[in-house]
Amino acid sequence: MTREQHHDVAVVGGGVIGLSCAWRLAAAGARVCLVDPEPASGASRMAGGMLAPVAEAWPGEEALLELGSASLRRWPGFAAELSATAGEPSGLHEHGTLVVGVDSADREQLGALAEHLASLGRTVTRRTSRELRRVEPALGPAVHGGLEVPGDLSTDNRTTLRALLRACTATGVEFRAVEARRVRPGEVEAGQDTVRCGTVVIAAGTHSPGLHPGLDGLIRPVKGEILRLRARSTALPPPRRTVRGPVHGRQVYLVPRPDGVVVGATQYESGVDTTVTVGGVRDLITDAERVMPALGEYELGETGAGLRPATPDNLPLIGRLEPGVLVATGHHRNGFLQAPITAEAVEALLSDRRPPAETVPADPTRWKGR
Amino acid sequence: MTREQHHDVAVVGGGVIGLSCAWRLAAAGARVCLVDPEPASGASRMAGGMLAPVAEAWPGEEALLELGSASLRRWPGFAAELSATAGEPSGLHEHGTLVVGVDSADREQLGALAEHLASLGRTVTRRTSRELRRVEPALGPAVHGGLEVPGDLSTDNRTTLRALLRACTATGVEFRAVEARRVRPGEVEAGQDTVRCGTVVIAAGTHSPGLHPGLDGLIRPVKGEILRLRARSTALPPPRRTVRGPVHGRQVYLVPRPDGVVVGATQYESGVDTTVTVGGVRDLITDAERVMPALGEYELGETGAGLRPATPDNLPLIGRLEPGVLVATGHHRNGFLQAPITAEAVEALLSDRRPPAETVPADPTRWKGR
Repeated sequence: MTREQHHDVAVVGGGVIGLSCAWRLAAAGARVCLVDPEPASGASRMAGGMLAPVAEAWPGEEALLELGSASLRRWPGFAAELSATAGEPSGLHEHGTLVVGVDSADREQLGALAEHLASLGRTVTRRTSRELRRVEPALGPAVHGGLEVPGDLSTDNRTTLRALLRACTATGVEFRAVEARRVRPGEVEAGQDTVRCGTVVIAAGTHSPGLHPGLDGLIRPVKGEILRLRARSTALPPPRRTVRGPVHGRQVYLVPRPDGVVVGATQYESGVDTTVTVGGVRDLITDAERVMPALGEYELGETGAGLRPATPDNLPLIGRLEPGVLVATGHHRNGFLQAPITAEAVEALLSDRRPPAETVPADPTRWKGR
Repeated sequence: MTREQHHDVAVVGGGVIGLSCAWRLAAAGARVCLVDPEPASGASRMAGGMLAPVAEAWPGEEALLELGSASLRRWPGFAAELSATAGEPSGLHEHGTLVVGVDSADREQLGALAEHLASLGRTVTRRTSRELRRVEPALGPAVHGGLEVPGDLSTDNRTTLRALLRACTATGVEFRAVEARRVRPGEVEAGQDTVRCGTVVIAAGTHSPGLHPGLDGLIRPVKGEILRLRARSTALPPPRRTVRGPVHGRQVYLVPRPDGVVVGATQYESGVDTTVTVGGVRDLITDAERVMPALGEYELGETGAGLRPATPDNLPLIGRLEPGVLVATGHHRNGFLQAPITAEAVEALLSDRRPPAETVPADPTRWKGR
């Protein structure tokens, strides 16, 4: 059976990127169809929701820092418009980030991060243990100094996803709950149907490479396990800021939620596997309790794992694969952070305007001919 | 509304004790009604299923050891009849138990246990680390010696519960899915109904004290958190035997299941609270990995908590509270172990026969007049 309904755009994938693109395109007047068997699930549902380009900066990844920073600047406006359209909170949480360290190697790593950021003309504030504890009293005695990054924020990912679903509905996005199998210019094979449209936007995360030959070898799944902890009345309340650290060299983050914290995230390159392992949970709990011992009294509300879509250079893939096919995926650990600028770039490309300059290095054909 | 259906016996509570009593009574010809809003849930569903009176022996608790041993002797026959009636496996697993220790204090504790058992004329076999590892190669390097208790067994608690439900159905037990509020001689107030019967058997675990004034102050909830781990193809298979230990003084047990192991159990006296805490899960994982490091590679399949019904002297309450009201509860950590002898005692009391001698110290009126 072939349905001949006409859409301007078919977005394949209903994670934070696909939903953001669909909403922004529909808000700009396009007739949009979103193809996903279960929107707002997968890696976006599992995510911690950090909006933290600075705390994650790394020498050699300056284009990623620029992209993330440019998207973060768009977040307050994006969130306000999302909330207004959806009639629900956006999830944005504007209380900043602390990066803390435990042992001397951790502190060296924080020092290197501070120097690197200074060399880029960005300043972060070094804080002593005492200063850190003054703003976040729940930090444990193992925490020895850190950095304050007030501009790095977070969002409650599930609240954001709920708002995006509402905003899509409110702007007339049509949801097609089928699994896409193949994308060609202007059409998506999905289930028994073919969805026809002007342009397809592939935003299917780790599923993307199977949809189009132009994505072969460009996306690999990076498994992340994550915990959702709920504060109990007998325990200290969650921190106000995101608290993250290298803890004995391992990355851990605590992202506040209204009812507790999200603790993430392990990183394994082990293919398509979302099993929650004993070892992963053990590492997350151990590291999180080093940072905030009161978490031992919290309820272990949920354990889960998602697959981040990673690219060879950690920049996403945003741009045109061929006429009639755009891609917006490969956001790895930064889907929520980079959603506003990605949606803006996709909207620009579809109306033949120039996308934001910071997205140009994310062109999906950047390896062509090398 | 009052239903006037007539039953010989109403069993209140559909855990392992209530189901076992209901089945045995119905098999003996009684018309039995079982009152529980959700049979086979609660503490019985969470349990590890150890049948281990010897490994848990403790000076001063000789009556408990005798009761447990007498029930364990009945298990193979109970399991065979259960399986035959249900047409399903009973869950019984007959591969014995190792009690292992990690530090010198643990080893002292094992030595004391061995001496205590020897003084009672029971022998357990001391094993070196090498001997232990020969029979259970997955034991970790931290394990330093232990005891082999081949007679202490285990059962897959959920398989047993499923078989008991089937056996009850097969023998004509009527299930009434309502919550009992009050028990009087020959009647149970439950929901909007009153269930009338010759005799009521209270087998409602930690809910029991609210049902009858004769149980006031005799049962307190002891929370236990427990993990269910699933072996993955990349990890060592589960042990064949139950492996338990004091690990740095803390009790932990690994009970094999066809697909992995059950790791239990914490003990908290914190009232009616079945929250799974971060600290509880952390302790269980830490101790379990000390005993069997390969568990780090297992899937964390399920976390949960149950409330054990504990009595002041750790013996259950089995006997007559008043004419027309029997009780069979307070089995604390030993519900599965003590189910066969408890059901036998209840059946004997209902037919005015003498219950097994080992159940006499469990008379619920034993504190009367003291």
